Amino acid sequence: MATVRALVRPATPRRIEICRTAAAIFRDRGYDATSVSDVARALGITKAGLYHYFESKEALLFEITMYGLDRVRDDVVIPARGIKDPEARLREIVTRHASIATRGHGAIAQLVDEVAALPPARRKQAEDRMRAYIDLVSDTLGELRAAGRLRDVDPAVAAFGIIGMILWLPRWFRQNGRLSSEQVAKQVAEIAINGLVRPRGRRRSKKVRR
Amino acid sequence: MATVRALVRPATPRRIEICRTAAAIFRDRGYDATSVSDVARALGITKAGLYHYFESKEALLFEITMYGLDRVRDDVVIPARGIKDPEARLREIVTRHASIATRGHGAIAQLVDEVAALPPARRKQAEDRMRAYIDLVSDTLGELRAAGRLRDVDPAVAAFGIIGMILWLPRWFRQNGRLSSEQVAKQVAEIAINGLVRPRGRRRSKKVRR
Repeated sequence: MATVRALVRPATPRRIEICRTAAAIFRDRGYDATSVSDVARALGITKAGLYHYFESKEALLFEITMYGLDRVRDDVVIPARGIKDPEARLREIVTRHASIATRGHGAIAQLVDEVAALPPARRKQAEDRMRAYIDLVSDTLGELRAAGRLRDVDPAVAAFGIIGMILWLPRWFRQNGRLSSEQVAKQVAEIAINGLVRPRGRRRSKKVRR
Repeated sequence: MATVRALVRPATPRRIEICRTAAAIFRDRGYDATSVSDVARALGITKAGLYHYFESKEALLFEITMYGLDRVRDDVVIPARGIKDPEARLREIVTRHASIATRGHGAIAQLVDEVAALPPARRKQAEDRMRAYIDLVSDTLGELRAAGRLRDVDPAVAAFGIIGMILWLPRWFRQNGRLSSEQVAKQVAEIAINGLVRPRGRRRSKKVRR
């Protein structure tokens, strides 16, 4: 059965370039206020030239979203899943996600709010994939809690606190600024771990508890 | 000299209601994509009726922004400034700001990105006032650092990490959900303090350092 996903053509450097440029314009002007002509102009191609790649503005938004979610899957979720210790895994998730959130001026990461502009089936598909990431974070926090290593904090507040810190990055991080993307990513992970994980020596031992 | 600010009329319950309703529509549909007619329709009044209160869509956005910044000044900045201890002050800033960020479904807090749609003079005015808040957070972190109480974290990453956690709240917090606004605000403050402030006993004594 052909799914909507199957209709998205493989990412080529040219398609990725179009996605990044379009994402930056959608972010700066708003998705609704941006026309296909605006995107074509920014790319230095004709509207017809752009339609060669994407059948509609909506298809372009969907591909940008899926491209961003592919990066989260390949560069965050899959590598992190291989880490057994939940604290080390949480650190890896935050460091990797914070690092990709600033890539290419973070235009794609900042489009997360525009998912609402997608038609229901595509929106659901995007949200299901976002859910997979949120589940990984929640499961990791759950493991820390089960091991008595999570501070006394609600897992939902913890998960969305982390996600908020990361997805706010593109709003203030400046490429070629005082701090590198890697430095910022490591620091965000450090704040998250210190904020959520009990320091060693103060952990609740499961054996002691009834 | 009449400033732009002086032209904004005092907030009455009706003007505040219009601001909240308009903020919710701007957030849901995007500022650019929303017309004055859309806002009037949502309020159940005519376009002419809305123009009685606001001369333009831009004036409406400006008043919403200033209303939100008034809340931050009156309910966060002024009460927090009176607290001498920087850790207690930081906790108060985060708790109070997180608490107002979820008010009225957080529509006003979420409009922060639309400041870019204001004309330059009004935009500068809004950004100057945002800066006053950011300076309060930065100064508080600076005091903690000077006292050897800040963890080994860059103050900019720390400040924007806090702001990201808070301004992400309206995206996921549900009124009448499992957690109250106050509970969530306290937890966000707890995560921020644990993430940024050295635990007692592990603080660097200034006397010991050269």
